[in-house]
Amino acid sequence: MTPPLAQRTDAPRVLARCRELVRPALGRAVRRLHPWHAEITAFSLGWDGPDGRATPGAQGKGVRQALAVLGAEAVGAQAESAVLGAVAVELIHTFSLLHDDIMDGDETRRQRATAWKAYGTGPAVLAGDALFAQAVQTLAGAPGGVCVPAVRLLAGTLDDLVRGQADDLLFESRPWTGPDAVRPHEYRLMAEQKTGALLGCAAGLGAVLGGAGRSESDALTAAGRHLGVAFQAVDDVLGIWGDPAVTGKPVHSDLRRRKKTYPVLAALAAGGPAALRLGALLRTGEALDDHAVRRAAGLIEEAGGRAEALAEADRHLESARACLESVDLAPVPLADLLSLLPYFVERTV
Amino acid sequence: MTPPLAQRTDAPRVLARCRELVRPALGRAVRRLHPWHAEITAFSLGWDGPDGRATPGAQGKGVRQALAVLGAEAVGAQAESAVLGAVAVELIHTFSLLHDDIMDGDETRRQRATAWKAYGTGPAVLAGDALFAQAVQTLAGAPGGVCVPAVRLLAGTLDDLVRGQADDLLFESRPWTGPDAVRPHEYRLMAEQKTGALLGCAAGLGAVLGGAGRSESDALTAAGRHLGVAFQAVDDVLGIWGDPAVTGKPVHSDLRRRKKTYPVLAALAAGGPAALRLGALLRTGEALDDHAVRRAAGLIEEAGGRAEALAEADRHLESARACLESVDLAPVPLADLLSLLPYFVERTV
Repeated sequence: MTPPLAQRTDAPRVLARCRELVRPALGRAVRRLHPWHAEITAFSLGWDGPDGRATPGAQGKGVRQALAVLGAEAVGAQAESAVLGAVAVELIHTFSLLHDDIMDGDETRRQRATAWKAYGTGPAVLAGDALFAQAVQTLAGAPGGVCVPAVRLLAGTLDDLVRGQADDLLFESRPWTGPDAVRPHEYRLMAEQKTGALLGCAAGLGAVLGGAGRSESDALTAAGRHLGVAFQAVDDVLGIWGDPAVTGKPVHSDLRRRKKTYPVLAALAAGGPAALRLGALLRTGEALDDHAVRRAAGLIEEAGGRAEALAEADRHLESARACLESVDLAPVPLADLLSLLPYFVERTV
Repeated sequence: MTPPLAQRTDAPRVLARCRELVRPALGRAVRRLHPWHAEITAFSLGWDGPDGRATPGAQGKGVRQALAVLGAEAVGAQAESAVLGAVAVELIHTFSLLHDDIMDGDETRRQRATAWKAYGTGPAVLAGDALFAQAVQTLAGAPGGVCVPAVRLLAGTLDDLVRGQADDLLFESRPWTGPDAVRPHEYRLMAEQKTGALLGCAAGLGAVLGGAGRSESDALTAAGRHLGVAFQAVDDVLGIWGDPAVTGKPVHSDLRRRKKTYPVLAALAAGGPAALRLGALLRTGEALDDHAVRRAAGLIEEAGGRAEALAEADRHLESARACLESVDLAPVPLADLLSLLPYFVERTV
């Protein structure tokens, strides 16, 4: 029995409903893995074991699986038709966390050791590969009529993911200022590929598996990609000004790590005296001490980088909304989708 | 113009013809990668750069691409129909070398640095992921009618590859003797997954892309899997008794690394006094010095492990031949396929 809209459409309820729907199939996919990979995957998913019981506080919210389920419902299909896509996207998300944590040298995630710290680099690489393979295999099992477009959407997404991650890593060795500096539009493309592509794939796969035409699935894909860019811009703001008690990272952590994120790049690109002083501070190439980090954060704010990052997030949120409203979607799932939008920008800034 | 059979059918000529046919498409696939990944891939393929000019001595022989091309021709299709499959399989092979070298800690391959030694672990992990993605994308571009079975064959193969690699790594921590010892049949399954699956996929993909029915593609897939097991058994013999000038590895290298390979496992499983002495020697858990390594090699031979490994290779070669002869294949490409068989076992033992 479908609950009335007022009860159904609030983000926590929508996310919980979609997680519940997808969990059995996700559990089956994890248990199909080699037992060693199933264990590492369960750990990465924040489960106690491959059966899917949650470790409190260690699980993601499941926005990707929700986008897949709502994508199918929005084009008039049963939620169940999206489950394969939701599983594939969750597996790819977990694969990318496993490998990205190795590349970035991150030792903790959600207050726990990352998989490569807990199990070793080689096993974490291989478990990631196993998830990648299982995701392709899951979608390859989709019904004949939708299998090809679904696999093509996933394949293009995987290509985007590795390009975005490559550029993110390469940005580290580019200068802060001058002709080779990373420009805000390059950063935006990276964020769209690294973060937006998989969110777009989730929503688009739901539509494709639900039998939608090209215009609906393209609109849902585009909406998800915008949500990814919005999410990344807010994440970047949190990486500098977020509350350590909420983010689980030290204050100003992205500045301490000299990460090139949107607020800094936007500040530098804005020109003016604060931008010039910020460029001079960052160009020294030395590790920033507490004082310098506070000064950099202040200069970024003064040059307008923080405000521009939040405006960027708002712009992409509005673009996502416009994409969703550009096609004819079923009203209840559309309301559910719209209820999720604030989640992407209204975290504790 | 097709040359007459006598000129065409000898292994080096067959391999060269297939390499020439596939190279342009492989080059295009590599150039579609992010430039950073294209560079790492070209290095791994033994190319001077992404344009495909060979670095002398650093290239593989291209047996996988040859199996794909001959698989298509054997079912009566044009060689060109297999090119997408040959490219996908070469990309997956390169992906697996990139990642396996990280997991195994191997610092050299074909007398050159491995990619992770030359470029760093993170970039090698990501380049491998990019190749994996590009392989899926390549096959996802196959014509509608054959796309689904082609992607399904590749997806199952990827699952096999990661399972085989996992078991190979896990065998390292199993005991040499006793109830938990690795049995020859477990080793055979691992070799079939780790080495056979991709060779089987190559031949099977050729058939699938050539529009073959299920019995032809299954027979070609099975033949390739047997070739992989045969290849691995001979590789294991070379890993102990191979000429260092040919293998590029120190004499007895697999014994020094205490690798559980088929000749050792077969010797231990054979029972008898030499097997018991071998078990006692290996169980000490100490690194084997030159004297102990020579003694172990002698005991493996005395217990029949070397002869059994070569017999295993021959059995699987014959099974491969039987698979190929169990279905109705075009005679010239069948002769080409049969001409390749000795390559898998007649290396310099």
